[in-house]
Amino acid sequence: MRTAVLGAGSWGTTFAKVIGDAGHPVTLWARRPEVAAEITTSRTNRAYLGDIALPKTVDATADIAEALAGASVVVLAVPAQTLRENLSEWKAHLAADVVLVSLMKGIEVTTGERMTEVVSEAAGVPAERIAVVSGPNLALEIAQGQPTATVVASVDPHTAETVAELCANTYFRPYTNTDVVGVELGGAIKNVIALAVGIADGQGLGDNSKASIITRGLAETTRLALAMGASIHTLSGLAGLGDLVATCASPLSRNRSFGALLGQGLTVAEAEARSNRTVEGVKSSGAVLALGAAHGVELPITQAVVGVLTGRVGVDELAELLLARKRKAEGPQR
Amino acid sequence: MRTAVLGAGSWGTTFAKVIGDAGHPVTLWARRPEVAAEITTSRTNRAYLGDIALPKTVDATADIAEALAGASVVVLAVPAQTLRENLSEWKAHLAADVVLVSLMKGIEVTTGERMTEVVSEAAGVPAERIAVVSGPNLALEIAQGQPTATVVASVDPHTAETVAELCANTYFRPYTNTDVVGVELGGAIKNVIALAVGIADGQGLGDNSKASIITRGLAETTRLALAMGASIHTLSGLAGLGDLVATCASPLSRNRSFGALLGQGLTVAEAEARSNRTVEGVKSSGAVLALGAAHGVELPITQAVVGVLTGRVGVDELAELLLARKRKAEGPQR
Repeated sequence: MRTAVLGAGSWGTTFAKVIGDAGHPVTLWARRPEVAAEITTSRTNRAYLGDIALPKTVDATADIAEALAGASVVVLAVPAQTLRENLSEWKAHLAADVVLVSLMKGIEVTTGERMTEVVSEAAGVPAERIAVVSGPNLALEIAQGQPTATVVASVDPHTAETVAELCANTYFRPYTNTDVVGVELGGAIKNVIALAVGIADGQGLGDNSKASIITRGLAETTRLALAMGASIHTLSGLAGLGDLVATCASPLSRNRSFGALLGQGLTVAEAEARSNRTVEGVKSSGAVLALGAAHGVELPITQAVVGVLTGRVGVDELAELLLARKRKAEGPQR
Repeated sequence: MRTAVLGAGSWGTTFAKVIGDAGHPVTLWARRPEVAAEITTSRTNRAYLGDIALPKTVDATADIAEALAGASVVVLAVPAQTLRENLSEWKAHLAADVVLVSLMKGIEVTTGERMTEVVSEAAGVPAERIAVVSGPNLALEIAQGQPTATVVASVDPHTAETVAELCANTYFRPYTNTDVVGVELGGAIKNVIALAVGIADGQGLGDNSKASIITRGLAETTRLALAMGASIHTLSGLAGLGDLVATCASPLSRNRSFGALLGQGLTVAEAEARSNRTVEGVKSSGAVLALGAAHGVELPITQAVVGVLTGRVGVDELAELLLARKRKAEGPQR
């Protein structure tokens, strides 16, 4: 039984290391042959993980047919908006009873679909053979062997358990869950909230303001997730609150860092020019807002972030939008 | 209508500034005459707030009778474990229809009571005339005029509204709530969780681990609060999640800093020798654990912190206790 991880960015490479450190053979597919060659020869992926060494259980290739040959579990770690096109190319190489695992945190802009929905459609695989992994999982910390918990979700508990067993090791501890909707929305929307926290940070706002944004951000995430059928326990758990807090606390977060550039006064184009990696929150924020509209849920922080990204709201107006609501009673409207 | 703030530590002094900046006259009582004299003459409280200037609407005294004369609202900002004794001394000076406001975050060790319960008993004032203020409120940021939201809770909405109007200003935004139990437990237990996060930080653990501790810490806080009659919305709001996140993110938090010293290998006595301020979480953690036992609620993080504080658990065992539970399904037991 062999696992393939498709995508050799920071999270894909780290997840291959996690599976390898669990003692399972894994093939990491890199789009660029030179990255596959670096991993094979020096056991590093310096562009993303510095001099952290990958175990011998991990090999690499830039040949998708080779990566997928005999892979009973295939982990997908590509940018969210390229997933459908990639999978339609890769579909022919997938084993008949393959289990697919999504590491992606985003919403497909063209359809408003969650990543496992895109996977199911594009690969022609039923939801029962698809899982998602999400939690407070800053890749670099995991690659360094820091103790980390995560959530593995699938509508089929057996599939979740299979994937959990595959990645459980001394530093990586998966908990299973059947609430795929809650786990995926928690992961996608936290990138948008992290942009808002980053903008506040870039403007010099302190921890009181940022904690308020995180609190209200989780509240709007939870409202939308419940409207879409998720469980409140998922959103208050590792894949909701946990992921949001880790992302918003960390200087390693791309979304938070991108927001900070905007908060410091850079335009979106200037910030993009400085950022050479995919910033999922920038791409998904409009799709998240559309999901809110489709389900009749107000998402004030997401709306403010979309306003900043589209140039309709200045960053100096954001704090006022986020914090200066009319004084009133807290909690649900009664 | 005059307000008295009793206690000139960082939060008491800052809250007096908040009321003063709202345009209301306020008298700040300091135990030490030299602190009252410094505030009166130079308008600073350097020991706590550096060179931040207090507005002219704030005056100070070390004479409790002078502070309480004609005060229709009295704000209490003393160490939690000294509250009962202080109030029994001050009771004779309180106006007949006084409103009392608690800024304290702790549980009385000798009785297991929340601060507003102690206030009601020791001052002989009914719960309807008592409020509590709590939220993501790092004092120094507020003193600097950073935009901050908070929660003012009282069983009587009119009392909450009175206090909210008193402290609302351009940078301080109060939301009212009637869930006193939820607000007080959120404030008291977050100090214990911040100790756990500090210990993890002192041991060199990263944001993934700390986010997991915060997530599980809010979960155990919420379980206890619900068992004691609180609303889940309070715990997921500014006085629960918000306060917890601000405290655990900030280098300004005494509880987190104290935990970090323990995580670095200092004994409790050594850490106390370095810390010249009240660390409420150290004092209240045993009382929080006792509340859990009384209500049949397991509090694994609080239990681990109490273990460290009492020397029964080494800090090197803490991460294992907090993160290395048997792999299982996330969420409520089914």
